[in-house]
Amino acid sequence: MTGQVLARSARLLGAVALAGCAMLSPDRASIRTDIERANRAFEQAVAAGDVERVGSLYTSDAIAFPPDAPMVRGRDAIKQLWGGVIRDMGLKTVTLRTVDVERAGHTAYETGEATLRLEPRGGQASSAAIKYVVVWKRADGQWRIHRDIWNAMPAR
Amino acid sequence: MTGQVLARSARLLGAVALAGCAMLSPDRASIRTDIERANRAFEQAVAAGDVERVGSLYTSDAIAFPPDAPMVRGRDAIKQLWGGVIRDMGLKTVTLRTVDVERAGHTAYETGEATLRLEPRGGQASSAAIKYVVVWKRADGQWRIHRDIWNAMPAR
Repeated sequence: MTGQVLARSARLLGAVALAGCAMLSPDRASIRTDIERANRAFEQAVAAGDVERVGSLYTSDAIAFPPDAPMVRGRDAIKQLWGGVIRDMGLKTVTLRTVDVERAGHTAYETGEATLRLEPRGGQASSAAIKYVVVWKRADGQWRIHRDIWNAMPAR
Repeated sequence: MTGQVLARSARLLGAVALAGCAMLSPDRASIRTDIERANRAFEQAVAAGDVERVGSLYTSDAIAFPPDAPMVRGRDAIKQLWGGVIRDMGLKTVTLRTVDVERAGHTAYETGEATLRLEPRGGQASSAAIKYVVVWKRADGQWRIHRDIWNAMPAR
């Protein structure tokens, strides 16, 4: 009897170990849907000029890496960064196109391309094409931007 | 008896589930050591002009994101990228400074800063300061660069 119970427990144990791994394993379709939903929220927040909302999409200890500038650390500093880009550079819209997402546990990383529409006051309107890598982290019940780095695509 | 065995099995099960998660959980000290060792190999390969060795530090399906250029996909294309930077831009040395590494399963992401020493033939020698995010992936028994993106620090 004890032997049978142990054998059954061993099978259970295997099943639980597998279930434990499945929770941490890649699930490409659903993670991509989650990330794309968060990207739509980012686009909408920028279009609305809602810097608070933009900031809320980052983790509290996120780092942003704007070109030609130092690292920007933490949600508050990142809010100021986007506030400045919207105000001073006239950022009107961002369009994000996810190329690829892979998940590893509570982290995921996305590669993508984006177009920024800039209409600076008194300056000429322009579009900037960039490519990016975002490390996403599951925090407070949703996927949030944890590392955000981008650079320019070639000039056309 | 059966009850005791089940209780003990339940404890075991918990222990095994924990052990399973520990294998995938962050281990900051050792992952940072591994990544820094790989970075030293990168520096040495660049200093030696050994493009094959540079390429071997990337996964076969890695993507590099050089500024002002499209994404560069796959180890062979990345070898050509670095070959071009060494030959045409006169890249002599890269010095990588890891700021932070976090691990999630068989993936890790690193943030850092780097200095590139450029001595183009017939041109003026210069240094370029950059910041970067690298997504590392455990492949073929070692940590390899899977996503590699950087951009400029502010001009001094």
